[in-house]
Amino acid sequence: MIIDIHGHYTTAPQALADWRNRQIASLGNPAETPKPSELKISDDEIRETIEKNQLRLMKERGIDLTIFSPRASFMAHHIGDFETSAAWSALCNEMCYRVSQLFPDHFIGAAMLPQSPGVDVETCIPELEKCVEEYGFVNVNLNPDPSGGHWTSPPLTDRYWYPIYEKLVEYDIPAMVHVSTSCNPSFHTTGAHYINADTTAVMQLIEGDLFKDFPELKLIIPHGGGAAPYHWGRYRGLAQELKKPLLSEHLLKNIYFDTCVYHQPGINLLTEVIPVENVLFASEMIGAVRGIDPETGHYYDDTKRYIEALDLTPEEKYKIYEGNARRVFPRLDAALKEQGR
Amino acid sequence: MIIDIHGHYTTAPQALADWRNRQIASLGNPAETPKPSELKISDDEIRETIEKNQLRLMKERGIDLTIFSPRASFMAHHIGDFETSAAWSALCNEMCYRVSQLFPDHFIGAAMLPQSPGVDVETCIPELEKCVEEYGFVNVNLNPDPSGGHWTSPPLTDRYWYPIYEKLVEYDIPAMVHVSTSCNPSFHTTGAHYINADTTAVMQLIEGDLFKDFPELKLIIPHGGGAAPYHWGRYRGLAQELKKPLLSEHLLKNIYFDTCVYHQPGINLLTEVIPVENVLFASEMIGAVRGIDPETGHYYDDTKRYIEALDLTPEEKYKIYEGNARRVFPRLDAALKEQGR
Repeated sequence: MIIDIHGHYTTAPQALADWRNRQIASLGNPAETPKPSELKISDDEIRETIEKNQLRLMKERGIDLTIFSPRASFMAHHIGDFETSAAWSALCNEMCYRVSQLFPDHFIGAAMLPQSPGVDVETCIPELEKCVEEYGFVNVNLNPDPSGGHWTSPPLTDRYWYPIYEKLVEYDIPAMVHVSTSCNPSFHTTGAHYINADTTAVMQLIEGDLFKDFPELKLIIPHGGGAAPYHWGRYRGLAQELKKPLLSEHLLKNIYFDTCVYHQPGINLLTEVIPVENVLFASEMIGAVRGIDPETGHYYDDTKRYIEALDLTPEEKYKIYEGNARRVFPRLDAALKEQGR
Repeated sequence: MIIDIHGHYTTAPQALADWRNRQIASLGNPAETPKPSELKISDDEIRETIEKNQLRLMKERGIDLTIFSPRASFMAHHIGDFETSAAWSALCNEMCYRVSQLFPDHFIGAAMLPQSPGVDVETCIPELEKCVEEYGFVNVNLNPDPSGGHWTSPPLTDRYWYPIYEKLVEYDIPAMVHVSTSCNPSFHTTGAHYINADTTAVMQLIEGDLFKDFPELKLIIPHGGGAAPYHWGRYRGLAQELKKPLLSEHLLKNIYFDTCVYHQPGINLLTEVIPVENVLFASEMIGAVRGIDPETGHYYDDTKRYIEALDLTPEEKYKIYEGNARRVFPRLDAALKEQGR
């Protein structure tokens, strides 16, 4: 079984974006705010956007199941206030829930949170509870920079974030550290901000001692861990300068990297440097890079090809494709077992 | 001959830091500003800090020459205003000039600029002129984020930066894109801000068309190019989405990556992904990571060991160690030839 732990509903029906645009246009003019009930999307419309896109590619590539969350760049937590984010995330999460209900064999949900810059993260907990308890979601995307490229929040190791971590540990679900769109012109969203955020998160976790306070907490650093595996010597050395334990102790009992690295040499390095137990198969397909690589003739984001080309034992491949995911997302494992998988 | 293109005077005598601390303490109180002439450092003091440190390690490791610039994290362009940066950079550059005069066989200078957030970069040109014309410097460090982690300047492709590029092209010297200390608590200086800046610069250059306007301009992306080589597939794919030429055309005629990557797998990837013509030997020794790697028993920043372990032809090694540097820094080549080297 092959589980893609990192997919977003990037192909949602246009009506969702239209609703969001109306919401944004109404900022400062509450009478114009669209009601959630004004969003009308039929099951057939959802089916079509999934069958033609993600599900088609999953079948072509041999991917059985995707952990599916709202489009990351559309989270845009910097827009409006908490109420803005709350209404928007509720709609986006509901869309992913409906996908998981329409295609229960192929999709299971992951939540976006109604984060808002400067707002207490406790405000996100009701949405998280609903997503886990009512929607059966198995993961949550946590944005370390809801300001969208201005990095005004405290580091992930700060107590500011602890209410979320407490809830995650209580539910035994991990979080994927995933930023949204950049509104800082210095940072291209998917080319700089995403990768920088991954790198930044790893270094924040090295500097702090978060997993002393939360030994059960699990965090996923997407996009192959940003720059961290490529500079693993630097990070081992910086941890040493900071008098931290070896990274195998200090980080790798709690953090995981996905395989959203879009060429063979990158995946080779990732699996050479990072223990196979800490690598989770993912493609973030129909995401940042949708083209075909002229050097290979295949989609850049067809990351299964890179894994297949590795010299791994069947046990190691099993871990990357399925075993690690069942361990890191216990609620996914439970849901699969309930389905007899 | 082995040329280390990326060294900083991280071991300068304490009097330099003391002067800077007095300067910072005097901000807002101009009567207290220390005069440059109050900084007293003898040649013997400089000799000692170099002989015991950089030169000792260069001899141990077999490095012949280092392109030597002021300590990057101490540039701190966000402190004070243009006058603050102007006085500080003049002193720091003079220190590197004195090192190059005391050890002409082993060191040649590279400038820091008196950048200041929001200030026209043309103000930096007199210092640059002095460093090139009077001090014989062969390179300059250009800070893409003088705000120190708030990223308030326009992207490197913006016309804001053009006066500097025009001067660089006129002098036929490159620039190394190098940030300074981070005053944003999200970003650890050497673990996040440096690497993020490298990644950000590469993506800015992909998004823009700077080298159409400056076909002769050469930029060095330090620290192995940040995350870029590890995610080279992503960057090739993003360039494709942006309808840019192949990166071999769009970037690699003008940008170069150094080898400040502190473990073997990273250097392996760098030299597998990036053409050898675009790789410049460097160690940034006695810099961010000063310890000994317990996995190898050698200094993390002894990057020559990683190059030596590569399966390269003598011609390829020559390019990385010397040939590319002579091409990218024509004033270095001229200076060496004058020395009969």
